[in-house]
This record gives sequence, C-alpha cells and structure tokens, in this order.
Amino acid sequence: MEHASPPHVVPKPVPNPAPDQTGSLLPEDAVPGGFRFSAVRAGIKPSGKPDLACVVAVGGTQASAMFTSNRVVAAPVIVGREHLRATGGSVRAVVVNSGNANCATGAAGLLAAREICKAAAEHFGCAETEVIPSSTGIIGVPLPIEKLTKALPAAGAALGGGSGAFSAFARAILTTDTRPKVAHRTVLVNGRTVRLAGACKGAGMIHPQLIPPHATMLAYLFTDAKIDGQDLATLLQTSVETSFNRISIDGDTSTNDTVLLLASGQSGILITPDHQGFRAALGELCQALALAIVEDGEGVTHIVTLEITGAPSDADALKIAKAIAHSPLVKTAWAGSDPNWGRLVSTVGASGIAIDPEKLQIQLNGLPVCENGERAQGFDEAAVHAAMTERRFRVAVELGLGAGYCRFWTTDLTAEYVRINAAYSS
Amino acid sequence: MEHASPPHVVPKPVPNPAPDQTGSLLPEDAVPGGFRFSAVRAGIKPSGKPDLACVVAVGGTQASAMFTSNRVVAAPVIVGREHLRATGGSVRAVVVNSGNANCATGAAGLLAAREICKAAAEHFGCAETEVIPSSTGIIGVPLPIEKLTKALPAAGAALGGGSGAFSAFARAILTTDTRPKVAHRTVLVNGRTVRLAGACKGAGMIHPQLIPPHATMLAYLFTDAKIDGQDLATLLQTSVETSFNRISIDGDTSTNDTVLLLASGQSGILITPDHQGFRAALGELCQALALAIVEDGEGVTHIVTLEITGAPSDADALKIAKAIAHSPLVKTAWAGSDPNWGRLVSTVGASGIAIDPEKLQIQLNGLPVCENGERAQGFDEAAVHAAMTERRFRVAVELGLGAGYCRFWTTDLTAEYVRINAAYSS
Repeated sequence: MEHASPPHVVPKPVPNPAPDQTGSLLPEDAVPGGFRFSAVRAGIKPSGKPDLACVVAVGGTQASAMFTSNRVVAAPVIVGREHLRATGGSVRAVVVNSGNANCATGAAGLLAAREICKAAAEHFGCAETEVIPSSTGIIGVPLPIEKLTKALPAAGAALGGGSGAFSAFARAILTTDTRPKVAHRTVLVNGRTVRLAGACKGAGMIHPQLIPPHATMLAYLFTDAKIDGQDLATLLQTSVETSFNRISIDGDTSTNDTVLLLASGQSGILITPDHQGFRAALGELCQALALAIVEDGEGVTHIVTLEITGAPSDADALKIAKAIAHSPLVKTAWAGSDPNWGRLVSTVGASGIAIDPEKLQIQLNGLPVCENGERAQGFDEAAVHAAMTERRFRVAVELGLGAGYCRFWTTDLTAEYVRINAAYSS
Repeated sequence: MEHASPPHVVPKPVPNPAPDQTGSLLPEDAVPGGFRFSAVRAGIKPSGKPDLACVVAVGGTQASAMFTSNRVVAAPVIVGREHLRATGGSVRAVVVNSGNANCATGAAGLLAAREICKAAAEHFGCAETEVIPSSTGIIGVPLPIEKLTKALPAAGAALGGGSGAFSAFARAILTTDTRPKVAHRTVLVNGRTVRLAGACKGAGMIHPQLIPPHATMLAYLFTDAKIDGQDLATLLQTSVETSFNRISIDGDTSTNDTVLLLASGQSGILITPDHQGFRAALGELCQALALAIVEDGEGVTHIVTLEITGAPSDADALKIAKAIAHSPLVKTAWAGSDPNWGRLVSTVGASGIAIDPEKLQIQLNGLPVCENGERAQGFDEAAVHAAMTERRFRVAVELGLGAGYCRFWTTDLTAEYVRINAAYSS
C-alpha cells in the first residue's frame, strides 16, 4: 500500500465536464497518439443511446489491467484476463457494451464474450486474444450478442483519433451516470510531450477493490508513452491503490470492475516507474477520474474526504475509512448536514481496530468536534452545521496510535439513492 | 457458534404488541416472581414521555450480561461490567434512562453512571455494585444526572410486580421505537411452572455484536428459575448467539448494546444448561424479542429471513449473511420488491468467502431465482415479484461447499430510513 501521496498529486478540483450530450470533452491535442475511438447504437440500452464503444490501438501497444476482486466475475472479465495472459499484454482493440453486464450468464455468456472478440478481431485485423471485451449494466440477463456483432462494422467505420471520437467513446460506456467522466494530463520529458487521457463510468455499486489483473466501474487510461509490460503493471497498481481503490459510494463491489491502461508508445518516449513526473501525472489522472465517479454518485448531495491519521498501520487506517464510508447512520447524518459526531465515534469504535477512545480526535473542515473521545471544548455546532451544508467537506480522524494513514473519498446516503435503486429493474 | 436451532425453537410469529400507550402487554400471571418494575418521567426526553425505568430484584437474584463489542463503550456499560465482576453476578436493581446514551461523555459521564448507582443503592437498600445502569439515546451529550436522581424516589414509589408495571418499564426504555417489545414463555418442570419474560428496545443502529460480559439495543430478560452464575452465562450466550447476534437493520453496532438476564430463583426450581425445555423457551424468548426489533426497524417495509446453507463453515455462512444484510443495493431492491437477483449474486461474490459461482443456488420463498450461478431455468419473475410484495419473505442461499449454516434476520433500506436518520439531531 502506498503511503501519503507526494505533495504534487494532492487532488485538484475535478475537471467535471458539463452534462453536454454532443461536444468534445477534451482539447483536440489532448488525446494520446496511437488510438482511435468510436461509439454506435447497438440497441441494448432501452433508451436507444449509444451502447457499443470501441478502441483500436496501433501495433506494439502494451496493456496492463486490474479487475474486480469479487468472486463472482463477469464473462468479459474472465475472457479479458485470459487474453492478457495469452499475449503478455499485447492489446489492439477494446470492445465495450453498456446496458448489460454479461454476468451470471453461464456458458452462454462466456461464449458471447468470446464471440464479440472474434468478430472484432476479424473486423479490426488482429488476433482474437488481442481484443479485450468489457460489459456494464444489469446482471443475470443474457447478452444479445447478435446486436453487438451486427453493429461492429458501423463502429469500425466511425473510428477516429480526435477529441470528438474520444468523447463519443466516453459517453457510450455510461449507464446510470448523469455525465461523462474524462481527464487528461501531459508530462514534459526532455522538452518532449507525453500525453495521458482517461475515461471512466460508474455511479452505483461503487466500492472497487481492484487486484492486479481486477468494477461496475470501468476506467480506460491511454498514454502515448512507451512502457514495458511489468513497468506498466507497477505504475498502474501504484496509481489505482491511491485512487480507484480509495473510493466508495455504497460499499458494493461489482462483478465487472476494470481499469485498463494502454500505452501505445507513439510518442517514442520510454517511461519507467522511477519517472516522478509521469507517476505524478498518472496518479492525478486516476484520482481525477475516481473523484468524478464519486461526484456523480447516485443521489449524492455531499462529497466527503476522509483523512485517517495516527492509525497503527495504513491497513488499519483504510479499515476505519471504510467503516465510516459504509455506515448508513454516518452517511444519512451527512445528508442532513447534521453535526452528529457521536455516530462517527461509534462507527470508529465498531471498525474492528483496537482504538483507544481517549486518544480519538475528530475535526470537520478543521473545526474540532471530538477531543479525547468527548465533545470538543471548542465545539461550535452552528459552524460545523454550516460547513456541512457545503457540497464538499473533510472529516479528519486522528487515532493517536501510530503512523498509519489513509485518504479516502465517499458520499452521503440520500432518499434519492434509495429511490433510484428501489426502482423496479425489469 | 450454535448450529441450526433445534426444531422446537423455530421462530414463531412474533407476539408484536399493538402500539398501545397504556395497557398491559403481558397476561397478569406471566411476570416472573421476584421482580418489581416502574417507570417515571425524569425530563430527559424532549417529548416528556417516561424516560427513567427501574427494576428491583429480590435478594439472591443471579445475573448474567452481554455487552457491545464496540471499542467505544458507553459509561453505563463500563460501570455495569465492573459491578458484575465485583459481585460475581449479584444484582438487586437495574436503572435505565432513555433519551441520552451517556457515551463519549468522558470522566463526567463515568461519574454520572456511578452517581445514579449510588443513589439507587441508597434508595433501594442494596450495595452500589448490585445496581446495573443502562442508557440509550443520543451520543456525546452530557447526562443530566440531577434529573435522574431527583426522579428516583418517584420511581421507587411506583414499583410493582404485575403486568402493568412491567409494561410501563417496557415503554420507558424506548427511543425511536414505534412500539414496546415484550415476550414471555413458561416451562413446565415436573408439573411446576418456570416463567420467563423479557422487554427490549431498538430500531436503528442495530447490528448487535454482543460478546460475553456486551447495543443501543437493550434487552432485559427475567426468570424466576434458580440458576447458578456460570450456568446462567452459558444459557444466555447460547441463546443470544442465535437471536440478538443474528439480526441487523443498518449494520451499525452501537456503543451501548446490552442484554441482561436476571434469575430470581423465586420459583424454587433449579435449572441447569442441559434442561432442553428451558433452553428452548429462553431461545424462543430471545428470538421473539430480536425479531420484534427487526419488525420495528426504522422505515422498514420488508422483513427478510436469510438462510445460508452449504458454506465451508458456520462462520463463513454468517459472513455471507452479513454481506447480504449490509448491501445497500440488495436492501433497496427489496424495498422496491425488485427480483434483481444479480445484486444478491454480486454481494455473495464480494463477501470475502471463496465461493464457487457455478455451485450457487438462490431461492426466494422457495421460488428458484439462481441455479449454478445463472438465472434459474424456472425463474418466474412475476411470481418472485409477487412474493416480494409481502412484508415478510425468505431468501435461501445454498453454496454447495460444506455444512456451514446460518439463519439471519434483516430488513430493507427505504427512503423513510434515510429521512429519519438525516433529520437534524440537535
């Protein structure tokens, strides 16, 4: 586990694109070279919106992926893992459908995932194992594979390397999201530019627990740097640990979570894991995308940054952050801007970590609420309430036991979240 | 951990008393001998309802208790533990206040808990260590101890051994509960009657994890059997493990959870843990009270019984039950009567247990929804939806891996739960 992020990857304001339905989400020259993108309507989403998104990468593109740690794994995740193992990370195409997770679909689902890869391989002129399939949507419904294979030619014809095509890709992967989520960075290396860009989706069932080669969070990261396979895996794991693996909306870990990092090498610049600038940029990219998911959480009205310090270990700090992030009583108090800090104290106490209540300090946006396990001397209820009426606030928990640290991003729990998820799915 | 309950403690319909504000909740002869009860208004609850409840027990009464496993422990729990240790389980009085949890209140809170015991000891004529204090309500607010000590004489004057006094006690311990929760049983021993009765409270912050000598679930169990200290502990732990420790409303474990079992010996009948009839009756009593808490869960519209079978071990089965009981996506689907079984599959997969998805079977009220990890052949969505419109239904999960078993009771998650808990507390 990574310790505190270096200072230059402190999260910046999230570049949250406006809920624009057609425009470009990135500057034209922000898209890394070596990739073409497209999106078409295959007819899976009842809304009729684009639901088949493709990426085609140049030869020599190196990939690294992390998939869900859920024991129930969607068919495309199984096939994607197989393909990455078979090729050692050579990827030429990514085919994503939204509207159906192709999970809990048995042998037929596996066959469908293989079929889309085969069809894409023929269409884009690569090996079947060089295609990574992805699916997101409802679980347990057979994937209408013919709709996807029929739509592939149109997806091939629509491929483009510009910001418009990238933006169409970023929109077609969405499900309950209210807006597309993209970010980009550049790194200067000896006067030359390396580009990074990414797109992701996710608004519910968000508590990714990605393990090396592991959402229904889907995140696709692109760079034109040249990076070797093991180095790419190292860079990805380090960045995911302090970004996608540090967010939770509802504590439910999906069967389909995937983060895929593709390096086309088209910039001609070789990057290794010791390159501080690239690491910082990739870290920022992942944090920006992870935060964009939290910002778009289902029914969310408050975004809360948790800073756990003084834990016996980083792992303990993470456990306490997750206990807070998954407490319905804490999350509903946040929804009501209620300075009910006793619920925080109770949740920290029930986290399973051997805390010492008398050493417990809690602040909200720097305002003291709990000191030595009791109400803080300077507790100003009105000021704390006012801070909690803001969309974003920080909760700092100091345990006074050690050097263990964790920063984590989560949300409140609102009646709207319940309404969205209690709506009859079928 | 206990395995499947013997057949005669299969839960019966819960004897849920009507939300009657004044009447008797038990038949007159159901109250075990050796106990007197009372309740008065001390002025802690803003509503002005009774908030100080007392029990006075005859000399020779033996007690056993289980308290919360939360690391943050309320002052009355600390003092109650001390007193039980000091006396070896001799208890003459229980003093309960509602409206304030006396938790996260520091040295002043501890002092207040001791002060109420001292005042009760003087008033009721026993040793201070023979008094058990209990508190339930908001966390982190100083307990107005003078209000309690001032109200003690009135509480003493009101003491009575009948059903009316017992019912007043059962009502005064409530907080967000919508109704009192009581149950009673009798056991015939060689033609003579042993009585058991209990009262409990709890509607939110309900996921008790009681450990021997451990809610803001409070449960008080009374019997006129004569039971030795260690035997009483054994009987209590066995019963709690398959009742109070098998329920969850919101997954939040309180700082104040307490189950206290008092045996007055007034029937003159000696009971040991090998007495099947008494064990069954105590087990039923605990399950009835635990279920009454679930039935009165905050904003609850569905009560769900989980039956996990085929787990590698009982502990694994419990872990899976808790994963399901704590999944916002599963609980909101229940709220919507939505047969979205894919969320169940995903939650089981994310539980941390090494399941085999291809062996996974799920039924709802006996209707197949998932077979071998896929949609069941005979899946009848309309029938499953109809079953889920009922207030109570059963979800059976068979893992096909071993003999591990767990039965667990939980609730849906509704917009009303959020409204209740997002309401400004102060």
